[in-house]
Amino acid sequence: MINATIITIGDEILIGQIVDTNSVSIARRLNTIGITVCEKLSIGDSREQITSTLSRTLQHSDVIIITGGLGPTKDDITKHTLADYFGYSLIENEDVARQVERMLSARGIAFNSLNRGQALVPDGCTVLFNHHGTAPGMWFESEGERVVISLPGVPFEMEHLMEDEVIPRLRSRFSLHANIHRTMITAGIAESMLAERIAAWEDALPEFLHLAYLPAPNIVRLRLSAYDVDEQSARESIEQEFSKLYSLIPDNIVGFEDASVEKLVHDILSSRGNTLAVAESCTGGAIASKFTAQAGASAYFRGGVVSYATDVKQSLLGVDAHIIEREGVVSEATAKAMAEGVRELMQSDYAISTTGIAGPSGGSAEHPVGEVWMAVATPEGVEAVKRQCGTDRGQIIARATAYAIEMLYNKLKIEK
Amino acid sequence: MINATIITIGDEILIGQIVDTNSVSIARRLNTIGITVCEKLSIGDSREQITSTLSRTLQHSDVIIITGGLGPTKDDITKHTLADYFGYSLIENEDVARQVERMLSARGIAFNSLNRGQALVPDGCTVLFNHHGTAPGMWFESEGERVVISLPGVPFEMEHLMEDEVIPRLRSRFSLHANIHRTMITAGIAESMLAERIAAWEDALPEFLHLAYLPAPNIVRLRLSAYDVDEQSARESIEQEFSKLYSLIPDNIVGFEDASVEKLVHDILSSRGNTLAVAESCTGGAIASKFTAQAGASAYFRGGVVSYATDVKQSLLGVDAHIIEREGVVSEATAKAMAEGVRELMQSDYAISTTGIAGPSGGSAEHPVGEVWMAVATPEGVEAVKRQCGTDRGQIIARATAYAIEMLYNKLKIEK
Repeated sequence: MINATIITIGDEILIGQIVDTNSVSIARRLNTIGITVCEKLSIGDSREQITSTLSRTLQHSDVIIITGGLGPTKDDITKHTLADYFGYSLIENEDVARQVERMLSARGIAFNSLNRGQALVPDGCTVLFNHHGTAPGMWFESEGERVVISLPGVPFEMEHLMEDEVIPRLRSRFSLHANIHRTMITAGIAESMLAERIAAWEDALPEFLHLAYLPAPNIVRLRLSAYDVDEQSARESIEQEFSKLYSLIPDNIVGFEDASVEKLVHDILSSRGNTLAVAESCTGGAIASKFTAQAGASAYFRGGVVSYATDVKQSLLGVDAHIIEREGVVSEATAKAMAEGVRELMQSDYAISTTGIAGPSGGSAEHPVGEVWMAVATPEGVEAVKRQCGTDRGQIIARATAYAIEMLYNKLKIEK
Repeated sequence: MINATIITIGDEILIGQIVDTNSVSIARRLNTIGITVCEKLSIGDSREQITSTLSRTLQHSDVIIITGGLGPTKDDITKHTLADYFGYSLIENEDVARQVERMLSARGIAFNSLNRGQALVPDGCTVLFNHHGTAPGMWFESEGERVVISLPGVPFEMEHLMEDEVIPRLRSRFSLHANIHRTMITAGIAESMLAERIAAWEDALPEFLHLAYLPAPNIVRLRLSAYDVDEQSARESIEQEFSKLYSLIPDNIVGFEDASVEKLVHDILSSRGNTLAVAESCTGGAIASKFTAQAGASAYFRGGVVSYATDVKQSLLGVDAHIIEREGVVSEATAKAMAEGVRELMQSDYAISTTGIAGPSGGSAEHPVGEVWMAVATPEGVEAVKRQCGTDRGQIIARATAYAIEMLYNKLKIEK
């Protein structure tokens, strides 16, 4: 089994100023090629801490991936520390220097001594060229067949380097077996009841399959993991176990893996050649954003209206003033009229709408903060549902967005 | 200085299945009371790893906070491992048992042996009662005045326990000085140029102030941190340094702390009683989302149109077909017509528009991926600017969003 440690560097992580998503995407990617992450850690921009952490983790890690601390300013010390640790000198790399100059001039920024410093690399490392930024990645070979890789902390730069440079090199450097993780998503059954229901199955699992319960509101994910195994036979074992599981809780299984619901909708609409429009009030553009963040969304996404002001719902989406007066802005009738209105306006096959109270103010006894009406309009008609989406504004917007997209997905699934 | 280590436990973190936000909120909270987080780490649901990590980190940490692994199922082993580590036995806690029973019956779930297990606690620890869930927190006193705290991994349960139990106990347990972090936000100047411009100031900073550069699309945050200090004098020193900094780069300072540029626009529009609408193509709802994520946005945000399809730009925003034919969809004229169109449509004082190529496909030699035209329409007229926003779809959307909001902010600032 090939073991990895992920180290993220930056005081901003330790004071809680940023959420570390880099280690998540690195961990996921390493796992898919059969490298097992045993530890993830975050430390400060401190030479002593970087050095002592490297010394310790190199004792049990085949691969160490470090992100962060490669910027041009004084608080970025990763590169110098790594060079010293491995006993290398910093030399200018011409390709990197040209890249830095090119990137800066495209943005109208003058090349100065700090940028010049970004073109310096330790003379004993392999440079991983960064096509999307000014700080290159670095690949160090340590004693005892171990590899230390340093990547920039800017997420998309790191991701491109992982994909284009790190993963192919790790694949050819190590003889890898697969790590397999498959997840079955259950809904409508509490974790402890679920565990009781499937206890005999769990006890009879083969030794090499590890079961994990991952609870979330209304959902428990069951993950089976197999490490360092022959891919095909492990997949077959998991399939067998999943079908036994299926027969135990057939009504509670709602899906598999981590596929986002918007990606499922994206795939269905793209393949069927159908189109979508959205009319958002309380979600304020978040639903449109979820779809348009996906490459190729223009194949089916016609557009959206964020009808935040009440009169915009009337003038643009054609919601009848009487409906709003009689039923209220947050109502079944308004949600339906919004979905039908935007479907007509954008000439789409499907439409989603939301109208609710995102808070913190605006709630009442009758319509508390978190109440959201959402509707889906299809060529066959329109349906609406009311969901309670929580108490915190960010949470309410996120949940209403997720519920509304799921509502459309369930419609599309049935029509399949 | 009181040092803390945060340990999050769970295989799901190591395979990248979830983003760890618990350690972010714990780190932030500890910092506010003057406890310095030196290391954050994530390890698997493994008895050996938990034990060895505890042994190692107890050598240099005054406080260790552990989250996760307290659920009712077999993969949750934190409680048993901690009991063994400290040499304690598990005994049933009546208060916890009653709470588990109450919570389950409220959700219509039968009490079973797994839930009974949740009421077991190590006999030598202090139980931190969890009002919002079934797994209690635990407080262990270790040799040498060190404290080990175990909390459930469900974020809001953990947060309530931190706030109600952990923070007050830590305050009375340790004599704490403050950690101060203040952040100044700059815009419109690249990190390397900024560093050059303020180099002399940076070199002359007092020893106890630490400067960090935190770059984000189009902005760089400058954070000054002081650890384990007298709060008032540290705040005064930071104020002095910030006013020196202000005189060096007066035009580039857009705010303080975590205030975003959209928050600044939000504040200006709210206080002046002016309104805003947006017309988005390549940003696909991201600009509307930024504004509507803020509580009180309805005071000024009239709404938005995501005109993803070209004909929606014409039919809804009234962009002349000849303009699109002659100048192209991604052009100065189209951006201006979109901003003017949505301003008219939504009857707002101000409007923002974006039209560009988010990629990965759709680029050409003339209009490469990442090229975005953006416009701001005001009561006085309309202006547009072209920005190169990068090469990666997510980055392009994020930068175009940030640039466009800043463009409006700069207009509003001048009109002040």
